[in-house]
Amino acid sequence: MSNRAESVLVGLIGEGVMPSLTPPMHEREADVQGLRLLYRPIDLLDLALPAAAVGDLLTAAQRMGFNGLNITHPCKQLVLEHLDEISDDARRLGAVNTVLIQDGRFIGHNTDFSGFGAALTSGLPDAKLNRVVQLGAGGAGSAVAYALLKAGVKQLDLVDMDPTRAAERATELGELFPVATITPRTPTDLPEIMPLADGLVHCTPIGMAAHPGLPLDIDLLEPRHWVADIVYRPIDTRLVREARDKGCDVLDGGRMAVGQAADAFQLFTGRDADRDRMRAHFLELIAVEDAATELSATALAKAAH
Amino acid sequence: MSNRAESVLVGLIGEGVMPSLTPPMHEREADVQGLRLLYRPIDLLDLALPAAAVGDLLTAAQRMGFNGLNITHPCKQLVLEHLDEISDDARRLGAVNTVLIQDGRFIGHNTDFSGFGAALTSGLPDAKLNRVVQLGAGGAGSAVAYALLKAGVKQLDLVDMDPTRAAERATELGELFPVATITPRTPTDLPEIMPLADGLVHCTPIGMAAHPGLPLDIDLLEPRHWVADIVYRPIDTRLVREARDKGCDVLDGGRMAVGQAADAFQLFTGRDADRDRMRAHFLELIAVEDAATELSATALAKAAH
Repeated sequence: MSNRAESVLVGLIGEGVMPSLTPPMHEREADVQGLRLLYRPIDLLDLALPAAAVGDLLTAAQRMGFNGLNITHPCKQLVLEHLDEISDDARRLGAVNTVLIQDGRFIGHNTDFSGFGAALTSGLPDAKLNRVVQLGAGGAGSAVAYALLKAGVKQLDLVDMDPTRAAERATELGELFPVATITPRTPTDLPEIMPLADGLVHCTPIGMAAHPGLPLDIDLLEPRHWVADIVYRPIDTRLVREARDKGCDVLDGGRMAVGQAADAFQLFTGRDADRDRMRAHFLELIAVEDAATELSATALAKAAH
Repeated sequence: MSNRAESVLVGLIGEGVMPSLTPPMHEREADVQGLRLLYRPIDLLDLALPAAAVGDLLTAAQRMGFNGLNITHPCKQLVLEHLDEISDDARRLGAVNTVLIQDGRFIGHNTDFSGFGAALTSGLPDAKLNRVVQLGAGGAGSAVAYALLKAGVKQLDLVDMDPTRAAERATELGELFPVATITPRTPTDLPEIMPLADGLVHCTPIGMAAHPGLPLDIDLLEPRHWVADIVYRPIDTRLVREARDKGCDVLDGGRMAVGQAADAFQLFTGRDADRDRMRAHFLELIAVEDAATELSATALAKAAH
């Protein structure tokens, strides 16, 4: 109907998603583009629903007129069986973080990997990709490794505290990228492999506010290494700061967060997102929330006296 | 969270609601007020769901982060059993057209009656309300009769082709308004009662594009009668035009349509709607759709040659 303003209704299904910055990122970008968009967090914990409810929530979203959904932990694999169609990359990766709802059909995509890939290309355009060390082989790590291999990495050293997980992931990825060499590793291998690597990608929770610290001995980093972190709260993790101080080219975790959101925005709305504008807004959101956190921490400290 | 824009997600559950003008009325008013609001029609026919699915749809809406819903035919009574709380007027009337979703609870209201009441007060401020003839005792008619009696009508003649329906409705209303005299009537009574009435309210489908014509002998109208129509497509029904030509004070059906929407907007958003602005937009929407209908009728006629 020509007199009806175009509008887009989307949501994010997962556990603990209420504080996610993805909703305001999408809404602000749509505002600037003059598009009516509303993005609702749908929190399984708040709703007291199990992860297996994701299929029912998809049906509910379709009935309620949603155009699409982002899917996050713990539903990225569980959602697969409820989809009518899955993009080639998401199928190979075995994980979906974006579902389009079109004519009552559910179509799965993965913008975690594509978002990291875009961030790598734009944020570290000169990065050598011959050999890369990746720390962390969990869910986010899978998407990042997939993106690295798609971007042309020839040797990937997959480091995880859990040798079984590293081995399983290396085998899966080896089947998808038979030309690449993917080697499961444990942290004790780092002194041996870092001197051979072009860059380092960090995909564990270390560096988040709740898990402070460094994910590796900083002496293993040389100025010639590039370093990509996917932790983004805080945006300047200790790894990002110390690598930058050493003179390394650095990609902070905000780039992937913005990349996945920008790619999802494009899928949801059919319009390109301005990634620089979206990143500026993202940094603004983080700054405001960090200031609020510090304020309440100060208030708590004062109250304790 | 202070950095998150306030936003309102609402919908309309019923059969054949896709062309409803209520969604764009709400969205435009919110736009002018700088409020992010998205209003989705949820059509039982499109979804191939029975009217009894309204309870499931309420649950779906709550899970998906809706702030409220309008409810229309055929669910205004069926929805009652799914509510946690019902306003006094909606309970007395036995019909809910607006549900607020607050902290997981469903709270029912009726803005059909309040919207008509507000339209009557503002559109016909000088109308005498001693004795009124109402044509049509169906669902919309019930809300209108309730509003008339709340507004102080002392004698209500309830005219319906179906004498049983008129009698049942008169009894129900008589219990709610024991001081008023409510008399069930059939159209054959009109020559007798119109000379005694201050005004006429029309609540049947006659005058809609699909049911052209007049709902009563126009000679029964005198210039001293006020006339209120609730049909609004077209906005100038034959009754409205001929009554106006006679010199009657007239309230067109758009006033009630805007009134129910404005009251629902207030409930959904906690903000007053500007009724004049909403009506101007409503008339604009109708004009655009009527032009589109004429265009396609012309195109069809040409194609037929």
